[in-house]
Amino acid sequence: MTATDPDTLADRVQDGDLRIHELEDHADPDTAAEARRLLVERETDADLSTVGDYAFPAEQAESTIENMIGAAQIPMGVVGPVPVSGGAADGEHYLPMATTEGALLASVNRGLSVIRDADGADARVTKNGMTRAPVFRVDGVAEAAETVEWVNDNVDALREAAESTTSHGELLAVDTYVVGDSVYLRFAYDTKDAMGMNMVTIATREACELVEAETPASLVAVSGNLCSDKKPAAINAVEGRGRSVTADVVIPGELVEERLHTTAEAIAEANTRKNLTGSAKAGSLGFNAHAANVVAAAFLATGQDEAQVVEAANAITTMEAREATASPRSDKRRSREREDGTTDLYAAVSLASLEVGTVGGGTKLPTQAEALDILGLRGGGDPAGSNADALAEIIAVGALAGELSLLAALSSRHLASAHEDLGR
Amino acid sequence: MTATDPDTLADRVQDGDLRIHELEDHADPDTAAEARRLLVERETDADLSTVGDYAFPAEQAESTIENMIGAAQIPMGVVGPVPVSGGAADGEHYLPMATTEGALLASVNRGLSVIRDADGADARVTKNGMTRAPVFRVDGVAEAAETVEWVNDNVDALREAAESTTSHGELLAVDTYVVGDSVYLRFAYDTKDAMGMNMVTIATREACELVEAETPASLVAVSGNLCSDKKPAAINAVEGRGRSVTADVVIPGELVEERLHTTAEAIAEANTRKNLTGSAKAGSLGFNAHAANVVAAAFLATGQDEAQVVEAANAITTMEAREATASPRSDKRRSREREDGTTDLYAAVSLASLEVGTVGGGTKLPTQAEALDILGLRGGGDPAGSNADALAEIIAVGALAGELSLLAALSSRHLASAHEDLGR
Amino acid sequence: MTATDPDTLADRVQDGDLRIHELEDHADPDTAAEARRLLVERETDADLSTVGDYAFPAEQAESTIENMIGAAQIPMGVVGPVPVSGGAADGEHYLPMATTEGALLASVNRGLSVIRDADGADARVTKNGMTRAPVFRVDGVAEAAETVEWVNDNVDALREAAESTTSHGELLAVDTYVVGDSVYLRFAYDTKDAMGMNMVTIATREACELVEAETPASLVAVSGNLCSDKKPAAINAVEGRGRSVTADVVIPGELVEERLHTTAEAIAEANTRKNLTGSAKAGSLGFNAHAANVVAAAFLATGQDEAQVVEAANAITTMEAREATASPRSDKRRSREREDGTTDLYAAVSLASLEVGTVGGGTKLPTQAEALDILGLRGGGDPAGSNADALAEIIAVGALAGELSLLAALSSRHLASAHEDLGR
Amino acid sequence: MTATDPDTLADRVQDGDLRIHELEDHADPDTAAEARRLLVERETDADLSTVGDYAFPAEQAESTIENMIGAAQIPMGVVGPVPVSGGAADGEHYLPMATTEGALLASVNRGLSVIRDADGADARVTKNGMTRAPVFRVDGVAEAAETVEWVNDNVDALREAAESTTSHGELLAVDTYVVGDSVYLRFAYDTKDAMGMNMVTIATREACELVEAETPASLVAVSGNLCSDKKPAAINAVEGRGRSVTADVVIPGELVEERLHTTAEAIAEANTRKNLTGSAKAGSLGFNAHAANVVAAAFLATGQDEAQVVEAANAITTMEAREATASPRSDKRRSREREDGTTDLYAAVSLASLEVGTVGGGTKLPTQAEALDILGLRGGGDPAGSNADALAEIIAVGALAGELSLLAALSSRHLASAHEDLGR
Repeated sequence: MTATDPDTLADRVQDGDLRIHELEDHADPDTAAEARRLLVERETDADLSTVGDYAFPAEQAESTIENMIGAAQIPMGVVGPVPVSGGAADGEHYLPMATTEGALLASVNRGLSVIRDADGADARVTKNGMTRAPVFRVDGVAEAAETVEWVNDNVDALREAAESTTSHGELLAVDTYVVGDSVYLRFAYDTKDAMGMNMVTIATREACELVEAETPASLVAVSGNLCSDKKPAAINAVEGRGRSVTADVVIPGELVEERLHTTAEAIAEANTRKNLTGSAKAGSLGFNAHAANVVAAAFLATGQDEAQVVEAANAITTMEAREATASPRSDKRRSREREDGTTDLYAAVSLASLEVGTVGGGTKLPTQAEALDILGLRGGGDPAGSNADALAEIIAVGALAGELSLLAALSSRHLASAHEDLGR
Repeated sequence: MTATDPDTLADRVQDGDLRIHELEDHADPDTAAEARRLLVERETDADLSTVGDYAFPAEQAESTIENMIGAAQIPMGVVGPVPVSGGAADGEHYLPMATTEGALLASVNRGLSVIRDADGADARVTKNGMTRAPVFRVDGVAEAAETVEWVNDNVDALREAAESTTSHGELLAVDTYVVGDSVYLRFAYDTKDAMGMNMVTIATREACELVEAETPASLVAVSGNLCSDKKPAAINAVEGRGRSVTADVVIPGELVEERLHTTAEAIAEANTRKNLTGSAKAGSLGFNAHAANVVAAAFLATGQDEAQVVEAANAITTMEAREATASPRSDKRRSREREDGTTDLYAAVSLASLEVGTVGGGTKLPTQAEALDILGLRGGGDPAGSNADALAEIIAVGALAGELSLLAALSSRHLASAHEDLGR
Repeated sequence: MTATDPDTLADRVQDGDLRIHELEDHADPDTAAEARRLLVERETDADLSTVGDYAFPAEQAESTIENMIGAAQIPMGVVGPVPVSGGAADGEHYLPMATTEGALLASVNRGLSVIRDADGADARVTKNGMTRAPVFRVDGVAEAAETVEWVNDNVDALREAAESTTSHGELLAVDTYVVGDSVYLRFAYDTKDAMGMNMVTIATREACELVEAETPASLVAVSGNLCSDKKPAAINAVEGRGRSVTADVVIPGELVEERLHTTAEAIAEANTRKNLTGSAKAGSLGFNAHAANVVAAAFLATGQDEAQVVEAANAITTMEAREATASPRSDKRRSREREDGTTDLYAAVSLASLEVGTVGGGTKLPTQAEALDILGLRGGGDPAGSNADALAEIIAVGALAGELSLLAALSSRHLASAHEDLGR
Repeated sequence: MTATDPDTLADRVQDGDLRIHELEDHADPDTAAEARRLLVERETDADLSTVGDYAFPAEQAESTIENMIGAAQIPMGVVGPVPVSGGAADGEHYLPMATTEGALLASVNRGLSVIRDADGADARVTKNGMTRAPVFRVDGVAEAAETVEWVNDNVDALREAAESTTSHGELLAVDTYVVGDSVYLRFAYDTKDAMGMNMVTIATREACELVEAETPASLVAVSGNLCSDKKPAAINAVEGRGRSVTADVVIPGELVEERLHTTAEAIAEANTRKNLTGSAKAGSLGFNAHAANVVAAAFLATGQDEAQVVEAANAITTMEAREATASPRSDKRRSREREDGTTDLYAAVSLASLEVGTVGGGTKLPTQAEALDILGLRGGGDPAGSNADALAEIIAVGALAGELSLLAALSSRHLASAHEDLGR
């Protein structure tokens, strides 16, 4: 009989009798994690008692981690509530955020408070498609052209193959790219309420078999980096991945002055010099101040894939002082030079490739599921996809609040300083 | 007398008597968090009991969060140990990782295991500098040229101003950029063992006052996005930010075959088609398979800034089959066509802008501090900066392991499939 | 009566009686140009006799220049002939090139000579579409979403509007992009043998009127820079503009050794370090050695738009040493480790956005039309578009030759140097 | 005796007795070109009489072309004159341009005319350095770090080596970059009035020998694409190459209205939506409307390298409506809300990497030299470098005029259309 107390298990790993990743074969997950902590504590100077003080059965984490020793605990807070008028989101929402960045929630909360006083933000998902882009090898461009032609002519067959592997996913399009003797096919899917990376990988693999059977192309990798997952790629910034979502708001001039202590013109200038021109000069794919802060914190809180912050945070922030004549048709939010001489501020954040889900992956973990409950968005939506759409829209409003707050702080300081200069 | 039990506090917020961020003014941090949970639970359908079951005094999180309700718990595991021969890191290390990405640690661990059998990886920090790039407004290019000239002539004075605000930071350089009537100055600092964002912001602000006093330039924003923080910008990929670090290894051909079930040639081909050519075609700044997975998980575990994953994961992965004649001078790791006909694999990951610290920020939180203890890198190093260097080197080795493992999986599958084709 | 001799006309401009661009209103084009030369000669130290010694009636240049003073004469040569097996091009071709870059034609000619001895190059146009992308202003994202939806639902109506303005152009697709309160629509057309910039601008303007009539969107500019004309943009590198064309060749190992004095492995290594990894590190959209040299010289010779060299030269060069097992299905060009121990070289150049035409614009000028006659491609093709396709394919082969020649020169030098090192 | 009449020479090539590039060995350059034309005419349907009707002795083109058959003639005109107040340029200048783009000169001339009425443009070269970036192979990152350290410690020795090859060039800096087992060194030089590509290549080669002698690094290619020559690379857009130059102007509000038929606000809005936001969304390195048109045409006229238009046209165009308080310190061009209610327009074009020369290369060709005489900038300047600086500044002003003219046209149309809408 083999003893399965943590100490004995740790001994056995140290004796070379077991390997560190085999502990779960010999004990329940919590005991295995405890044994692993013991082992690491013996071999290093660490005391892992807080890491081991996690608040859920280790069994619940089995699909998300291997070699578990416990949990990292990241402080979580809430900001809001804020009214969102979205394509899917509606009403007032608190946004949960987990972060170690001091002052972040305070800043976002300040922005949300101004947005609330401006009657809330609009938000819309304007594109949706999770992508996977396998790379194939061909003999040369003659075969490449032949492959591309076959693919363009057989999208229906590829759809049938891909969708045979999933009950939810729908193939939207297959785009073709040729570089020498490599052919890249970018498959885009509607994955409904799932972020969908696994779903589209499986579906695309099935479609690839058809491509291999019917063309001279030979699969090299199911991801050829035109997806492009967890890399900052222009293809995502341009064409989108996951949800392309924009949130915007018009802040009346009085509010800009009273609450943000600046003017629409000053904030628009700061945005242009920093977020547009500065980013342009930096050769950046990100034209914003700190959208990543909000995206990362909301991702952590709600169980999204941390590594996808890389592209999910890809945002363009636009701000403008609105003159009366520039937007003649609007009646709902007609901007105008107001009687008090102030000008309204239009502010928007457009996230090109926000990959989010409300089912699967990290969303099932206890603290993350509770965070989704705060938003009322845990699990599949009705209609399918609406929960993930709503989550995207609310995160976008959070990012908008963060941008507003930071830009306002910069421009109010600049304005104050300019006034001092004038006084000299 | 004001009651400070959680229920009453929650009532007061709902009554409009208190605002949600003012709770800490009326109760200790843990009670305030509890009151906030109660409030959110009343206003939504959420049960926040697991979020509230955090393993540290809320007081310890005060510098990292506002509006706290509890903690997000992310499963943490370890991979390794692996021998690292670095400029700062040395010896065998376990790497703690926190993630919700199933199979990630298993994959990295497989890669580390092969690296260990290949006698470990080399790693070096080849550049180091945390940046802050304010943007100034001038009247036009004539003033811009005047400002640039003054800055170039007065770096010593700027250094004195900047370093007056910090006991650790050293100003390394100030680069100048002009776009129309905007002047951007990119300050780079050695921030030792701190990631240093706050330190360099304060130092740069002081230097900016000198610029404003001595030139016609007027500060618009202390960050003009040429820093570039939390955005995927070429300026970081090219010039670096935080640590520029490379890890590499030569895997003997036998190991490639026995352990990775593929060949050096096949893995190099997959790397070229996917990570180099595929990323090139995608307009990407990231030429790797999934470095972000390792960086994000290590960042979460060790208390780094998760939003900086955006640029910290910026990596180029290179792989090559090494022929005997190609590297004539090496004696330590001479690659050769071996007697058994196998060829060695050279693999490297070069991270351009890995911002890490072992003091300050999230590194002080309990679970994160314990994770740093696993590495033996909590707190300031001796010499100063060596702990952060070592952390960068070990994360780079982890990323290398992840790349190796994924590329090997792809190419072994491709090879198997090619062999089947041959059998037809 | 007004004297129209050049001297008098120059006097009148100097007297303020005429403006410099009004000379054609008072004299025939050649006299006007002469008067303008006189004027400039008087006001500067220039002698413009060679500029004035142009070989065509000034009248023929009227649609291509204003304020004409004569012509710039750029030396023109030919390279080749080279056999091209293309989708449209076929047989042997000389390629005319005009340049001031010494050694360029010699280098390209050397490459073509090796390609010829390798039985010629393959080439294919794998995508075709000239784009114009107007930007519209809307009130906010709600209107943006409404506009996008209308466009997606009404592509047929947009096609009808657009094609009403042209007898040749065909609308292929309309892609939508939203950034805040800006909506960009990217129209792509098949413009047959015309480069087509003017054609698609006129057609798109017509379509824009429909968009303005049916949606809340208001046109700001018929080009919103997502076209993207004459700027180096990822959208072109990824999605293509004009022709996406690849040329490739397999050079037998003997030829690589005898004619290029290097090996397939060495040339592939140089290509990877320079064109792939080096360009990756540079944050480049161009992964090649000097494709722009060939594109610019061929553009000048054949009357293409010089400024479009910016994106037309966007190329990825791929080179690989071909092993027997790597391409098991090929019979035509089976690469193998040959009996003599040499390995074949596969080389390809893929140009993403080569905008070319054989009708209209500068192709009608006398020297340029003669250059197109050298290629047998002046005027419209049969079928329509085939001449422009063929021109794209032949330029791609020229670019391939230039890449081969330069990379071979680099790697033969490197090999030689490595051998010396070994001899030490 | 060998007959050297063109017919006989063409026969000999057709008979295989001579190769096409050997004709200059058997006849004077003009005869050789004639023989080559004959040959091409026989083998194609071309009549090359206009190509052969060039206006200079072929001998003068020998250093710029091989396999010459004649010349491409590109219509040349002039725009201006315009007052430029530069760091090197001063006074009124005509700018010669050669192009086949109808309406281009008219458009630029319109812009220059408005700039003239606004008392001319300012211009400054704010950075200057021609770069060459060799790539070296090392055994791994340990050697890479060693090499980088040696280079950083031995810049003086590298300077001595590099400058030993040139009487004009001065080494300014050497920057180091590591990717795996590749080390890139970016050498930057002041090349005075020469564009300097050849000069810096020779100098860098010499420095490379020292690197190879003193470090483990082995040269793979003298250009490793971090230069980056003739490719659109962020490294040039960020750090500059050749001249970084900005031109700007303040157009009084009255002029904007009377001459451009629009307002400062409208033109600034069009610039933001198109040149900033549109380019951002396109993943572009070019934030302008059509700077490449002006750069390409000026390059052709003045004998610059037409393939360098790729990066030379890299420009950011900024436009803003200037309010009185925004620029409190200026007295020279104080912008203000004028009594007539109009607002001034500030407009600037910043070219990051304009590679120009007034000596060497194509500048020696007859028509190109005459064009430089129009500018008074042929040959070396006093002080050295001032002619190339002045050329850069004047081209920048030309580009500014082109941007102004196009943006004004767009926004006046937009304004007119908006007014119509209002009238409905």
